[in-house]
Amino acid sequence: MHSNPAQDTMSEKKIDPIRPTDAEARSLAKELLRGAGFAALGVLDPETGSPMVTRVAIGTDFDGAPVTLVSSLSQHTTALRANAACSVLVGEPASKGDPLTHPRLTVQCKARFISREDPGHEPLRERWLAHHPKAKLYIDFGDFGFVRLEVERAFLNGGFGKAYVLTAADLGLTG
Amino acid sequence: MHSNPAQDTMSEKKIDPIRPTDAEARSLAKELLRGAGFAALGVLDPETGSPMVTRVAIGTDFDGAPVTLVSSLSQHTTALRANAACSVLVGEPASKGDPLTHPRLTVQCKARFISREDPGHEPLRERWLAHHPKAKLYIDFGDFGFVRLEVERAFLNGGFGKAYVLTAADLGLTG
Repeated sequence: MHSNPAQDTMSEKKIDPIRPTDAEARSLAKELLRGAGFAALGVLDPETGSPMVTRVAIGTDFDGAPVTLVSSLSQHTTALRANAACSVLVGEPASKGDPLTHPRLTVQCKARFISREDPGHEPLRERWLAHHPKAKLYIDFGDFGFVRLEVERAFLNGGFGKAYVLTAADLGLTG
Repeated sequence: MHSNPAQDTMSEKKIDPIRPTDAEARSLAKELLRGAGFAALGVLDPETGSPMVTRVAIGTDFDGAPVTLVSSLSQHTTALRANAACSVLVGEPASKGDPLTHPRLTVQCKARFISREDPGHEPLRERWLAHHPKAKLYIDFGDFGFVRLEVERAFLNGGFGKAYVLTAADLGLTG
């Protein structure tokens, strides 16, 4: 993508950094999402409307949609109740090398809270514990609950200069 | 914080999960911010107003304020030019144990772009390369530039149930 600084500056307006989505990009994106145990969650701070990024545990629902388990005492939960628009970043860098060359996936979502009375709650609880066994310490606390993240679109960065825009369908989701 | 689920549900409204900020919290927050090489950056998607979280390299300016180096070809840079409100999450989990027990820091900021003509640019460029030597591959490309993140406030999560609200002054910054 880059040749030399002067040329880049001159041609900056013409560069489209987004590549056409292909099977390899879809496969890498699914792998990043399904392999993640935690994520950076971006929400809108209800007091200011500014972005706020926190760490959450992440897993997937039976159809592959991302799910998180959050406490109602946390700021992100208060924020998601006020505005369901959110984003998660998954794909942890290797411990060596430049973290910006490591593939990562940004997902834009709408949060949907799953109540304990929902028929899907118990199967999801079992699925979550199978993947996050340490959560058994707090999963049944009264303030904890599941939030399903309905995917609207995603951005894959497969490493320096390899960017893709993906749909829910690209991630194998019905959206 | 937790005793049993029923009691938690009953007393939920009364719990303030934020602890008083102390010297230990200030010290941990500074350590997390100054020790970070990359971060999750939350911005507002200019198309939708929704949050968008991406990975960026992070470092500090000479006064300890967080700084990032971004490409004008990236979505987060476009977003920051449209709305300077942003947030960064730093503090990478250890590879073992529950990532939610690992300390992390959420910072809410306003982005300020630093032009190459700014007298602070060259010293900052040298400082950045000392901490991010791999950036020499692209730091001088025409589309790359520094963004200083002026801290407005921060939230420290020192591990399960240990939350603090911090000011810029708590982080040793003049704000």
